[in-house]
Amino acid sequence: MKVIKNNIIDSTSVGVVETKSFTFAEDGEKFKFESGDTLGPIALAYETYGSLNSDKSNAILILHALSGDAHAAGVHAGQDDTGWWDEMIGPGKAFDTNKYFIICSNVIGGCKGSTGPSSINPKTGKPYALKFPFITVADMVNAQRRLIDHFGIEKLLCVAGGSMGGMQALQWISAYPERIKSAIPIATTLKHSPQQIAFNEVIRQSIMADPAWRDGNYYEHGQPGKGLSVARMIGHITFMSNQSMEEKFSRRLKSDKFSFGFDADFEVEGYLRYRGANFVKRFDANSYLYITKAMDYFDLSGDKFIPNGKDVHARILVISFKTDWLYPSYQSQEIVRLLKRRHVDTTYCELTSTYGHDAFLIEVPEQTALIKHFLDKTFNGYLVAGHGKSN
Amino acid sequence: MKVIKNNIIDSTSVGVVETKSFTFAEDGEKFKFESGDTLGPIALAYETYGSLNSDKSNAILILHALSGDAHAAGVHAGQDDTGWWDEMIGPGKAFDTNKYFIICSNVIGGCKGSTGPSSINPKTGKPYALKFPFITVADMVNAQRRLIDHFGIEKLLCVAGGSMGGMQALQWISAYPERIKSAIPIATTLKHSPQQIAFNEVIRQSIMADPAWRDGNYYEHGQPGKGLSVARMIGHITFMSNQSMEEKFSRRLKSDKFSFGFDADFEVEGYLRYRGANFVKRFDANSYLYITKAMDYFDLSGDKFIPNGKDVHARILVISFKTDWLYPSYQSQEIVRLLKRRHVDTTYCELTSTYGHDAFLIEVPEQTALIKHFLDKTFNGYLVAGHGKSN
Repeated sequence: MKVIKNNIIDSTSVGVVETKSFTFAEDGEKFKFESGDTLGPIALAYETYGSLNSDKSNAILILHALSGDAHAAGVHAGQDDTGWWDEMIGPGKAFDTNKYFIICSNVIGGCKGSTGPSSINPKTGKPYALKFPFITVADMVNAQRRLIDHFGIEKLLCVAGGSMGGMQALQWISAYPERIKSAIPIATTLKHSPQQIAFNEVIRQSIMADPAWRDGNYYEHGQPGKGLSVARMIGHITFMSNQSMEEKFSRRLKSDKFSFGFDADFEVEGYLRYRGANFVKRFDANSYLYITKAMDYFDLSGDKFIPNGKDVHARILVISFKTDWLYPSYQSQEIVRLLKRRHVDTTYCELTSTYGHDAFLIEVPEQTALIKHFLDKTFNGYLVAGHGKSN
Repeated sequence: MKVIKNNIIDSTSVGVVETKSFTFAEDGEKFKFESGDTLGPIALAYETYGSLNSDKSNAILILHALSGDAHAAGVHAGQDDTGWWDEMIGPGKAFDTNKYFIICSNVIGGCKGSTGPSSINPKTGKPYALKFPFITVADMVNAQRRLIDHFGIEKLLCVAGGSMGGMQALQWISAYPERIKSAIPIATTLKHSPQQIAFNEVIRQSIMADPAWRDGNYYEHGQPGKGLSVARMIGHITFMSNQSMEEKFSRRLKSDKFSFGFDADFEVEGYLRYRGANFVKRFDANSYLYITKAMDYFDLSGDKFIPNGKDVHARILVISFKTDWLYPSYQSQEIVRLLKRRHVDTTYCELTSTYGHDAFLIEVPEQTALIKHFLDKTFNGYLVAGHGKSN
């Protein structure tokens, strides 16, 4: 029975959830980063929804985007905010918790309960700051794999996520094809184009230009709020489409006339300022630097995606959105092209949406229809004994 | 006879030129800004190329973009840098100085010799800074009109410019149709979309976030370099297309391997940093704030463009570029639609270019072919006595 509170928790909600923590690389063992650096112990924050079945065949790993976290669905006790993909995860939803066991973990290097630059270095008693090892998408996935091992799950039914979550899904396909039955990379790419790198670089420069950043050692003084706020404003422009901004804001003014000054005249200006200021309260500036750079380094293009000699038996569903200009459809089509060339069972769908890159968070009914059916087919195929592709 | 120096000055160059200054609103007269504020005296920096004919019928006003200046063609004595539209202005070029008298003036509020926020307020002996009146595109054009009056030119053969230069051309059509024979608005719009406002707002926030901006009173201390640099980096991303960035940079690294840090790893990062730092040396931060806000306020959409009762007998050539996502073609098509609805003699051409918004500065041969013919026809039509549209 679900608690109903502000209409947030109803029969399609996973209800009240809590973030847990998994620690690995303890007792002298170290986690090895792609950079060659090592570190331990490492904590990953995660949440789960639904129940793992007896043969552990119904587990789905949800992978979050740049500024996401482990809180993908439901609400935390005493709070109203639902998880970032709440409309997609729950009883009867796309990721149906009546059938599947859903895991969502915060990435290594993040700031939402996982070990990252803002974590306390036990040796010094101070935050790692820029002494934290450089991270890559491969490191994120290698850390997640430890969590999956911890659950004793040999094979995930699916790995799914949008944007950077999609990059992690691609990394799972590439690095651990034997550990997944299927993958759903959404609104993502095998590699950042120079334009995508450029936006991330300006985001980083904006943070580092703020004297309050103090070369990363700001923790005693508070966030480099002005720089981080501008950084997030840039991000928000790229998440929306021209059309969705037109629909949401047009040229509406905040008051009845121009200020003839540098106040926020237009609603879109006020919105961006609000989103920027809000981000400062919830996301660590150094984590933003680390994670954007991890995205820029990510490159599974060409033969790097599925190296020769490797077989991928997983089923793949690639989704993109027509008005997403940050991760344009041609990048998803390139993923599909490489998969098809290697005879991987791949379905591609470009959804019509006006929401731009944000669509993966917003376009619920169309994604639900696709994903629900795709997961059912994967799950049922898995149950049929001797199914050729179940490997 | 042209001086040949470093291959820059040849027979198609206007040669060595100098920036002149025109001062108006002197002796107690004040220039009235659209905001209601008044100021005087006001100086406009300008350059001219070619010769004004005896009946003053061959004058073309070139209008610059956001960070442009009066130096549109040729070189300054002792310097190598050609003007910003040098390939378009000169003997035999699109704006043919063998036939036409070309004027280019820096906008009011600018920082390249015209009165603006960085100019010394004669009353205080200090720069105006944010005490400078707020400017609009209409103010820019009203100031230019004073310069045209000063030359005794009753009717300009043409007003032409790209981006914000195109906005000024549209403002000339709207405010002074009787003073122009033709206009060429390029890669421009009747009004900024919320996305265009959003980019300008982040540019402004980036400048104002820099403590060195000091609420605009930085002149004794130097520019707010870090904020202004980030601001310009944002601009540069929007000027280029995804394709042109791919062609120019792809994912090439600056050195042979990743830094695993926050240095500029990719060439595109180095390029943006260079362009940002360079801009700090050449453009005043407060002028950037003023001019971006003027662009955001600009709105000649709908009936505001050509108010009822007004006749426009000028010939109009509207040009846009296929990969320009900052000023997309649909915005040029809206200009054309409004002009056609009012039976104005209008030609529209969308040029195929990979250069994005920068194309108006780069795509010389195609623009030349269009503009040369358009100007010839306008000029010859003007010479034919009794030509109906010559008004």
